[in-house]
Amino acid sequence: MKILIIGGDGYLGWPTAMHLSNKGHKVHLIDNFSKRNIENENGIKPLYQIETMKNRIDAWQKLKKPKKKMSFSFGDLLNHRFIYNELKNLKPDHIIHYGEQPSAPYSMAGRHQAEFTQKNNIIGNLNLIFGIKKYCPNAHIIKLGTMGSYGTPNIDIEEGFIDIKYKGRKDVVQYPFKPHSFYHCSKAADSINLYFACRTWGLKATDLNQGVVYGIDTPETILSKYLNTSFHYDHIFGTVINRFLVQAAINKPLTIYGKGEQVRTFLNINDTIQCIELAIKNPPKTGEYKVRNQFTETFSINQIAELVLKALKDLGLKGKVKYLKNPRTEMANHYYKASNKSFMKLGLKKRKLSISFLKENILQIINYKNLVDQKTINPSINWKNK
Amino acid sequence: MKILIIGGDGYLGWPTAMHLSNKGHKVHLIDNFSKRNIENENGIKPLYQIETMKNRIDAWQKLKKPKKKMSFSFGDLLNHRFIYNELKNLKPDHIIHYGEQPSAPYSMAGRHQAEFTQKNNIIGNLNLIFGIKKYCPNAHIIKLGTMGSYGTPNIDIEEGFIDIKYKGRKDVVQYPFKPHSFYHCSKAADSINLYFACRTWGLKATDLNQGVVYGIDTPETILSKYLNTSFHYDHIFGTVINRFLVQAAINKPLTIYGKGEQVRTFLNINDTIQCIELAIKNPPKTGEYKVRNQFTETFSINQIAELVLKALKDLGLKGKVKYLKNPRTEMANHYYKASNKSFMKLGLKKRKLSISFLKENILQIINYKNLVDQKTINPSINWKNK
Repeated sequence: MKILIIGGDGYLGWPTAMHLSNKGHKVHLIDNFSKRNIENENGIKPLYQIETMKNRIDAWQKLKKPKKKMSFSFGDLLNHRFIYNELKNLKPDHIIHYGEQPSAPYSMAGRHQAEFTQKNNIIGNLNLIFGIKKYCPNAHIIKLGTMGSYGTPNIDIEEGFIDIKYKGRKDVVQYPFKPHSFYHCSKAADSINLYFACRTWGLKATDLNQGVVYGIDTPETILSKYLNTSFHYDHIFGTVINRFLVQAAINKPLTIYGKGEQVRTFLNINDTIQCIELAIKNPPKTGEYKVRNQFTETFSINQIAELVLKALKDLGLKGKVKYLKNPRTEMANHYYKASNKSFMKLGLKKRKLSISFLKENILQIINYKNLVDQKTINPSINWKNK
Repeated sequence: MKILIIGGDGYLGWPTAMHLSNKGHKVHLIDNFSKRNIENENGIKPLYQIETMKNRIDAWQKLKKPKKKMSFSFGDLLNHRFIYNELKNLKPDHIIHYGEQPSAPYSMAGRHQAEFTQKNNIIGNLNLIFGIKKYCPNAHIIKLGTMGSYGTPNIDIEEGFIDIKYKGRKDVVQYPFKPHSFYHCSKAADSINLYFACRTWGLKATDLNQGVVYGIDTPETILSKYLNTSFHYDHIFGTVINRFLVQAAINKPLTIYGKGEQVRTFLNINDTIQCIELAIKNPPKTGEYKVRNQFTETFSINQIAELVLKALKDLGLKGKVKYLKNPRTEMANHYYKASNKSFMKLGLKKRKLSISFLKENILQIINYKNLVDQKTINPSINWKNK
């Protein structure tokens, strides 16, 4: 298969690329390096140094015999000529679209950041849709969405659509959105555009509403330091479990925003890759817009903190938590029940957030704790934008 | 009251401006003239020549004694410094946001047009939201939305939100979107952003999901030829009733796309203004995002054609219809029941699409039929973008 990965330089894009390359697919990556730009802009960096894309690909190709087919083009979806050319030349079978600004806090930092996020994500995705229609209308678009576009409704969260009975009539409608940030709003807009393009033009798309991803390594990233993925623990890109792992390793309190009763969905980075592979193997029909919720487990923030504290205790280390005023605007107490049966039916094998996983990762980070830049951890972006 | 009208040069913006100015409000208009640009780009023009904005305002101020307060700034919401300055200087009480690219066919003409529409509408609205938060957080935003963002669901259309009962639980959620075009998709994205800003920042907004507007004149436009509004009958900006009026006047068949059983909501241009005034008088609370469906009547396209044919017959003129292959992708037969009770409760007095209204307007256009550019009427933009 010819697979195009947009956002191939990212936390998920790069390990996905290696995994699919290893499986024998011809993998072509593109990236505009917007994440590296945002790192520079905010004085943050991944835990491990990330090589240039050229060195990453060279290292991968040297390591794997026979040499794997992997290539890279630098460019931006906002430049439609760029993505048109890529699609025209590659004619991919599957297009994995990770190429969106993924940080909710970044999108809430101010007007410029909100605008960048929505332009990059919505208009970039729109250009991609038009390019696919023009050059490879049968390609399967696998777009990364987010569970956060559903918000925390008081009813069960289904997968993209919901059967509504109302005043004696019924319909199946796109599941209502209630996004948590301008980033999440951009993902809702993407989903609306993509569903429209599928039903109007007969494109085929899988929209993966993903939970919060955690983990440092995949079987490929550990092969060489040149193959690391960009593991973040900072207030911009560091999601809660990854941040807790680092706070635990450097003997700092696990910082919980608000009361910690917020419930979210989670998955291991290796399960992201497993889900992408399942999505590739099970493409939708022509004209179908298929939504799959991509997560394995559901936890409150307090539950995660407890697991990390337990792991620390097992290691003979002390840990504690610290409650911070919530910088986000989100519901403190809420119902939460989300379905992921679509991937379960396809045979998803869940990796659990186990104590042994947490211990292993904490120990690993302890070895590199001199790399941690502590002052980048605490939240400085307030949802009220004040 | 100080009222800012964004898109003050438009079909609805200009008559709204005169009406509110006449009522004694201080009215300031802004416009980027994108509609005039799209006219030039597509070789289309309004039926009556539209004066420069300077001449329109001069004519209005000369006509009305004592002189009315009306001013204009040229600028674009995509230039955030422009809108920030306007809001900072004016500190408006109400902001009527008509400033979006309003043509569904234009948004479907190709990538460039879809991109322009979504950037202008979504990012423009985002800049406006940030500006309001910064300079006039208590201002009331009245944003024009569209009934087309709901699509044609098989259940009743409520006003912005719907009570859902699902698996024994319930919630009130944003009414699901199923937009008809990339233009309508942009309006759904706007609504998601605006609702988010209200609940997160405490802004107050009225989102007016408007039906299809028809009519040439308001009590102010008829006062002088300098005060005309831009009445369109072409395939880009000409909506169905306005187009039928022109086709009837020039003795051409009324062109119906598809089977004509599509049902839509409609209102007279004077009722748009009436609704705007009702919205101004009934602002939402701080932090409230209020949606009102803005229409007076519901017709199928065939029903409208029948009314126009009857009007022609009354005038002793012959008329006929012609069915064209539908250039749009839309449901041919569907359930349709939409609520407008929010404006009815506020005392909206409906103008009906009467035979006498149709006759009057057809006769008026007959007097100017030499102005009609027939070759701009038939649809040349296909939703399939082929």
